Amino acid sequence: MTTIQDIMQEPVLKLAPDNTVEQAIAAIRATPRNRLFTYPMVVDKKGRLMGLCVMRDLILADEKAKIADVMMTKVVSLQQGVDVHDALKRIKGMEIPEYPVCARNGKLRGVVRASKLHEIEEARLTATPGRMVGVDEGETVATPFVASVKSRLPWLMINLITAFAAGLVVGNYQDTIDRVVLLAAFLPVLAGQSGNTGAQALAITLRTLERTGSTDFYSVALWKEIRLGILHGVVTGIAVAAVIYIVAIMQGDKGPAYLALIVFVATILSVLVSGLSGASVPIVLKKLGADPATASSIILTTVTDIVSMGSMLMLASMLIAYLT
Amino acid sequence: MTTIQDIMQEPVLKLAPDNTVEQAIAAIRATPRNRLFTYPMVVDKKGRLMGLCVMRDLILADEKAKIADVMMTKVVSLQQGVDVHDALKRIKGMEIPEYPVCARNGKLRGVVRASKLHEIEEARLTATPGRMVGVDEGETVATPFVASVKSRLPWLMINLITAFAAGLVVGNYQDTIDRVVLLAAFLPVLAGQSGNTGAQALAITLRTLERTGSTDFYSVALWKEIRLGILHGVVTGIAVAAVIYIVAIMQGDKGPAYLALIVFVATILSVLVSGLSGASVPIVLKKLGADPATASSIILTTVTDIVSMGSMLMLASMLIAYLT
Repeated sequence: MTTIQDIMQEPVLKLAPDNTVEQAIAAIRATPRNRLFTYPMVVDKKGRLMGLCVMRDLILADEKAKIADVMMTKVVSLQQGVDVHDALKRIKGMEIPEYPVCARNGKLRGVVRASKLHEIEEARLTATPGRMVGVDEGETVATPFVASVKSRLPWLMINLITAFAAGLVVGNYQDTIDRVVLLAAFLPVLAGQSGNTGAQALAITLRTLERTGSTDFYSVALWKEIRLGILHGVVTGIAVAAVIYIVAIMQGDKGPAYLALIVFVATILSVLVSGLSGASVPIVLKKLGADPATASSIILTTVTDIVSMGSMLMLASMLIAYLT
Repeated sequence: MTTIQDIMQEPVLKLAPDNTVEQAIAAIRATPRNRLFTYPMVVDKKGRLMGLCVMRDLILADEKAKIADVMMTKVVSLQQGVDVHDALKRIKGMEIPEYPVCARNGKLRGVVRASKLHEIEEARLTATPGRMVGVDEGETVATPFVASVKSRLPWLMINLITAFAAGLVVGNYQDTIDRVVLLAAFLPVLAGQSGNTGAQALAITLRTLERTGSTDFYSVALWKEIRLGILHGVVTGIAVAAVIYIVAIMQGDKGPAYLALIVFVATILSVLVSGLSGASVPIVLKKLGADPATASSIILTTVTDIVSMGSMLMLASMLIAYLT
């Protein structure tokens, strides 16, 4: 997390409100040409920000006019301790290239260029898909081997533990699979479908979080995922049911209609729960004070694996009498 | 894809090179105060961009000086047909708030604010995790239900087809699973582990593509993923092998050492191939002229599912004599 004070610079030119425009121009003339700035900042004797001067106004003003009468007083200033991401929310849509940075007491501490804020924000946004699967924000292809291992291996180990949780659920139903081995072929189908549904909901939720910065939309998101989950679950569930029905008949498996019913219900259930989980994972991470993206995919995949494969196998074990 | 001409505006103030500074100031005075601009643009009689005026230089210049002598001639201009993303690569690190936009023949077509470029880029970057799993760039929680279905359901159907491909591979080994049902419990472990490894490599590759805009790093990325894949495969393979060994002994399954060997080799193979696939998917999409992020996760998951579950089941079927 980068704050404004990490990237702010010294103000190049400070004026007093009782300076004249002529004095201001002399001060600009005295400033080395290579010291770039957009606005001379106007501060009082205690160093508090009073306003800033737009060059265009200086050009048009009378030389004898006071800076206090020429300066812009409706100034958007940024607090020095604020996160860059939050600062960008604040200045969204404003076309100002340079912002004064103030302490809580109103004293001018520095200036920050909008381009610098955007540069940091864009690096953070580019890193999001990686953070979702446990890759450090800074890692690229150019990162040295050992640093890449340190960035990725810990999350792979955590992912392994969560994968064992899904394995444990399946292992719990070995007897059911032993009796209806066709179910094994549908484990990746159920897991894949609910995994992608959950990933869609996760992406939408993260995106909305990024853009609004608030979690107020959570109940709207849940209600939407319920409706989408039912619709998508029914549509894809019919396809999965049709395939298992046909395969079961071709293989001569017992109870093809029951198998179709099982995967139909399991698909709806798992797509529904996956969508709700995808919407919930980043919100919960955010409410816990964590980054809403970090490891979100790893957490979500565990849930979607367990729910999808678990619900199919549980239903099958309940209806095992009709399948054997 | 948004190009510069989609977002450029009319230049507010155009000057001629033989105007004097005095004339320029009069022109600025004549421009309504609410028409914001950073630089008066300087064009020749044919409308070709000659340079731009920095307000600070106008303040300091002699009133009788010619604009041609005061203007900045080393100007960074953007081509009107260029993509916003590519334009931002070009102006990276520059702290210029406003850019002239020119046609190929050098004629000034408009101006564009850097803040506008960043706004579009940040919306695109925020959308990346969604595009990877088949969610339209524009969808958020606020998108109406029907539009969300249209955005997501087609990709869910494509994902379903790819999930069936993984199901087909597993279905092909029903006989092996029937004889060694414990393997079913390790399907989600192998798939989960290689899925996350692939997702890490995919994220790193997409991130590097975003930042460099070139695919030149591809061979470096492949070589790195080979080394990472072997190391990560061996480390996680040992863990998976240890778990199946212990479980097999507890359950009284035959050939626990062979089971351990099978999952150890399958983990290395699948982690290795997943890493290489993760690095390759966005490069191939890009070389095909497609967006490197769109549906990348869906494609990758298919590969990692098939390779991970397929390699474990294939090895087990080859060694079935030692397992039954």
